[in-house]
Amino acid sequence: MNGDRGALRRPLLLVLCILSLPFNARAQEKGNSLSIMPLPAHFEQGQGEFIVDGSLGIVLKGYQEPRLERARQRFLDTLSRETGIPLWREAAVNQPHFIVQTEGPSAAVQRLDEDESYHLAISSTSVELKAANPIGVLRGLQTFLQLVRVTPRGFSAPVVVIDDKPRFPWRGLLIDSGHRFVPVADVKRNLDGMEAVKLNVLHWRFADNAGFHIESKKFPLLQGKGSGGFYYSQDEVREVIAFARDRGIRVVPEFDMPCHTTSWFAGYPELSSGQDPSNSSAIDPTRESTYKFLDGFLGEMTSLFPDYYIHLGGDECDPKEWEGNPRIHEFMQAHAMKDAGALQAVFTTRVQRLVADRKKIMMGWDEVLRPDTPQDVVIHSWRGPSSLAEAARSGNRGVLSSGYYIDLNQSAAEHYLVDPLGDLTTATLTPEQKARVLGGEATMWTDIVSHENMDNRIWPRTAAVAERLWSPGEVRDVGSMYRRLAIVSQKLVYHGLRHRLITDEMLQRMTGESDPVPLKVLAAVVQPPRMYERQDLRTFTDFTPINRLDDAVSPESDTAREFNEIAKRIAREQATTQDWQQARDWLLLWRDNDAKLQPLLSRSFLTQDLAPVSRNLSRVAEIGLQALDDLHEHRLVNADVRNRNIEFLKSAAKPQAVLLLMVAPAVEELVQATRTQ
Amino acid sequence: MNGDRGALRRPLLLVLCILSLPFNARAQEKGNSLSIMPLPAHFEQGQGEFIVDGSLGIVLKGYQEPRLERARQRFLDTLSRETGIPLWREAAVNQPHFIVQTEGPSAAVQRLDEDESYHLAISSTSVELKAANPIGVLRGLQTFLQLVRVTPRGFSAPVVVIDDKPRFPWRGLLIDSGHRFVPVADVKRNLDGMEAVKLNVLHWRFADNAGFHIESKKFPLLQGKGSGGFYYSQDEVREVIAFARDRGIRVVPEFDMPCHTTSWFAGYPELSSGQDPSNSSAIDPTRESTYKFLDGFLGEMTSLFPDYYIHLGGDECDPKEWEGNPRIHEFMQAHAMKDAGALQAVFTTRVQRLVADRKKIMMGWDEVLRPDTPQDVVIHSWRGPSSLAEAARSGNRGVLSSGYYIDLNQSAAEHYLVDPLGDLTTATLTPEQKARVLGGEATMWTDIVSHENMDNRIWPRTAAVAERLWSPGEVRDVGSMYRRLAIVSQKLVYHGLRHRLITDEMLQRMTGESDPVPLKVLAAVVQPPRMYERQDLRTFTDFTPINRLDDAVSPESDTAREFNEIAKRIAREQATTQDWQQARDWLLLWRDNDAKLQPLLSRSFLTQDLAPVSRNLSRVAEIGLQALDDLHEHRLVNADVRNRNIEFLKSAAKPQAVLLLMVAPAVEELVQATRTQ
Repeated sequence: MNGDRGALRRPLLLVLCILSLPFNARAQEKGNSLSIMPLPAHFEQGQGEFIVDGSLGIVLKGYQEPRLERARQRFLDTLSRETGIPLWREAAVNQPHFIVQTEGPSAAVQRLDEDESYHLAISSTSVELKAANPIGVLRGLQTFLQLVRVTPRGFSAPVVVIDDKPRFPWRGLLIDSGHRFVPVADVKRNLDGMEAVKLNVLHWRFADNAGFHIESKKFPLLQGKGSGGFYYSQDEVREVIAFARDRGIRVVPEFDMPCHTTSWFAGYPELSSGQDPSNSSAIDPTRESTYKFLDGFLGEMTSLFPDYYIHLGGDECDPKEWEGNPRIHEFMQAHAMKDAGALQAVFTTRVQRLVADRKKIMMGWDEVLRPDTPQDVVIHSWRGPSSLAEAARSGNRGVLSSGYYIDLNQSAAEHYLVDPLGDLTTATLTPEQKARVLGGEATMWTDIVSHENMDNRIWPRTAAVAERLWSPGEVRDVGSMYRRLAIVSQKLVYHGLRHRLITDEMLQRMTGESDPVPLKVLAAVVQPPRMYERQDLRTFTDFTPINRLDDAVSPESDTAREFNEIAKRIAREQATTQDWQQARDWLLLWRDNDAKLQPLLSRSFLTQDLAPVSRNLSRVAEIGLQALDDLHEHRLVNADVRNRNIEFLKSAAKPQAVLLLMVAPAVEELVQATRTQ
Repeated sequence: MNGDRGALRRPLLLVLCILSLPFNARAQEKGNSLSIMPLPAHFEQGQGEFIVDGSLGIVLKGYQEPRLERARQRFLDTLSRETGIPLWREAAVNQPHFIVQTEGPSAAVQRLDEDESYHLAISSTSVELKAANPIGVLRGLQTFLQLVRVTPRGFSAPVVVIDDKPRFPWRGLLIDSGHRFVPVADVKRNLDGMEAVKLNVLHWRFADNAGFHIESKKFPLLQGKGSGGFYYSQDEVREVIAFARDRGIRVVPEFDMPCHTTSWFAGYPELSSGQDPSNSSAIDPTRESTYKFLDGFLGEMTSLFPDYYIHLGGDECDPKEWEGNPRIHEFMQAHAMKDAGALQAVFTTRVQRLVADRKKIMMGWDEVLRPDTPQDVVIHSWRGPSSLAEAARSGNRGVLSSGYYIDLNQSAAEHYLVDPLGDLTTATLTPEQKARVLGGEATMWTDIVSHENMDNRIWPRTAAVAERLWSPGEVRDVGSMYRRLAIVSQKLVYHGLRHRLITDEMLQRMTGESDPVPLKVLAAVVQPPRMYERQDLRTFTDFTPINRLDDAVSPESDTAREFNEIAKRIAREQATTQDWQQARDWLLLWRDNDAKLQPLLSRSFLTQDLAPVSRNLSRVAEIGLQALDDLHEHRLVNADVRNRNIEFLKSAAKPQAVLLLMVAPAVEELVQATRTQ
């Protein structure tokens, strides 16, 4: 009945390692380190542990305010989710062995220079958390949550004394509700994630060409005609601001101008530079009526948002928008403006004055930096760190986002190693100039990401950016970062983040199957192309469904990274027995996956184009297995075959179906390591 | 470096089937059936399909009300989640090829006899949904959602004409917020699930001995002293009622009395039957002051809840509570009451009058049925169907929950085959008496379930109960039910249900690992003991953490059910080659799992006691593999060994660490099929 039974009688180690990393990640992070992120400025570990059980009682001492009480309840809720112990209904009788001591209040509107430091002392019998104000308390509570782990004795936190404070005062995440509307619940969930890794600025962007997504009561046609019905009411905005303040997070709004503004013109075509407003993306900076409108609009928005900073964009203006309009062109000539940049500078100066009149500080993308830019304008660098250095030298402060573009599918390591003060152009600044570099912001642009898969792009990689901005500059060990990132990624689940669920959910949708394992196997080793290559391969509008494999997979394949490291060790003859075994297990899995995956792919219009990617994985793995054998047996190989294989592997490493097969380069490394006859 | 490489060169079919069922489940449900649940009363399938894409436009015609507009938006939201197409921001320009025609309104307060029928006609170019009122529209929209699947041509629904209506008017789910507080978000999420399977009654229970979880403005010490700080404000209750009404669901509150009431006495000790109110669970039915209090309380609650029905419990009164109190005992003697039941009958009559005065209908557990029970009291049968028959004969209407206790870890099939009119005692009723059997309710008691793992207990099994109560009585094919249940289980994810996530999340917590595969392998083949055996093995209070393996696993192991069917076919010599292969794959996986799992188990206090369960699985699988070989080779086996094995398998089938190893009986079946020398 079953002729091939014997062949199945084998241990199934693979099951353990196919779709997940080995279990030793956690164990490795022992000794002189904490498995948390960002790492604290100073800490000293002791012996023993503090057990977290149903008797936990937290007492707030010193300065009191409702925000602290809410923070305490939120802390207990998160700890309940992590432990399953119903701490959220903490009884009054509990042991008060967790003391929180707050010295005084923070500012009514959170300031840039707010003291975020805290002292956390955990002994085997008690916990003491001290801070100058509630924001320091928030930071310390998150540190404690990250320290909790399960042990043979119960849930516990290690004995440790931590004195911590941030390196940079501006540690942000940009959420772009301009390209695609992001529902309030999704924004809030990510604020919870930000709190967990000690980020303190939500840069919230509201409009772009395709949509205007915030309510203006003064100019209701903005959202009335520009939002497609989806916008944040002012009450919702206030709700999010309060939610963020509870987490020690400032909300800096962005209203990008004078360009990226087509959606404004649906309701107010007179603002437009073009004869056809629906075809124009730039505000007309030559009309007085424009500034009258913006005075009213910015007056309304600076009242709605309490923060001292307001972002007015200023990026990517197309000179043709102005030079192509005879009236504007004439105006430029009449005022001796030599180019569109000069016209934008005039615009910047005028809108800067509108916000300065309201005691607010303007922020703008690096295009707004010109020799005559007022010194209090904060420069937001997106094209590279040099504008940050340039700004600092000319007396402006700056925030770095270049290098933190988490929508571009770079690795956590790449983002992690970008330091606002680590670039050649910034490293040579004077201490006074360096102090003008305020920090950085990870940017979650939504032109090709929806609220649904957003968490998967933000987390866990943004935790690496958060560590860069909080921890001392010397903390730069990539291996340690990845080990701790895996732990923090799990912790973020207890804060409600959905990054770990998205791939599975989207693969289920693509196939209509509840557990499409062969597609998971493929998904675990592909990535969307990096930087702007993805947009070159696939056409996106702000309404394109985000439901294909390049949307579903993680921007960084952990499996491919691990395999790559193993392949390197094998090629260098530094591999362990376990490495050889793991490499072979994976290659076998990939080689045999195609036969199982193909029937599944043909059933759905969302997977049909993956057929060649799957075939390539199989072929790549076959070549890899051969190379592995050759290397293991120290066999000399045929030069022609070797060359053909290398050629194939190079082609397989190129994007296909808007996906990169991430294991092809590592297999090439194996083949390159073989020697020819 | 790796001496055992050769052994790994094998196809890894197992990966595909270990933790999930085979892919053919969906394919099997072709031909003359629809993959939806509950199955409609009448349907006729045609050729072709209706494609769901970004051009979908839905038009509401006929009677209009805001609830219909919200239903339309919710429908688009769910369809967006299922397809990834941003239909939720449906443009005005879309094609109006989905016409919803509503004849008129439903009652202001949803009635028991509300018309829920609808007509749904799907052609390849258009969809027409017609109903007498908005509730029929809601039902029809859910049917359409269930029909959508992914195909090579896009997301689509098959061409079909459906005429549908429910068999029973009362199709409920009890959520017990009495034992453990269930946060509003968890209640709402399950209302979404109820709507998806056409349930129409939320039986919401608010208090038990350990907690009183709803706000009374008239008697604020009820929640003030009895809730531990966790209760529903009346605004929240109104919000849930409105949320339910939007989904065509009535909310029937339960205030269990005169017993299960210790929590009432924290604030109002004078209500208690005991000298020590904190040690008493019964209200004193002999005092006039009791009825004055209840008059006030029920007056308040009947105003808060618009439904015509109110559940006043009446279950599980301990006679000692009353007979043990000399004053109450004396009262009983003075009024010639022969037992506590007679005293409770007096109480029932009085509280029934209090709600009848307010034009409400009392419902009570089957204990309230006595010869003199007023005929409008609805009897809720929990101890067995005979009280339902008895009630119907004496002119009372009844609702069945016996057999639908989803907290007792029975299989979907067991619940499915329980028919409110299928029992011997009910089958013999006259048509008029049968009409008094209103339907049934699945019961989600929370004494040993928390809001966290609740979804896992409710779904998907409750969909089988929903089909029993909606579809024609002849729909009883268990195989078809399980195939469709797997599909509906996936659909429920798009409604936001968490049942598919809970096991993984809880295993992650138990181990501190992000993907503890060997524990997943074990978890997939164990179940919590059935009926009340679990409580005998583990002590629970309403504050016990719900974080162990018996809390985490599904109440019904799909893997074990599949394996059991395969083992049966093998034992009967009816197995296919695929069956032999699948059985062997699983047994190998289980045999080898223990070695990988043990190191993991010892690391956490939540998994240490699982060591013998894991060892047993390994040993059971080893015996199974031997039996498989013996059967395949038609080998005669040693009788002593066979007996010892059977003995071991019987012991392994008994609960261990509050878990049942569900594959042991199937392996015993294999061993029993072998022949001795």
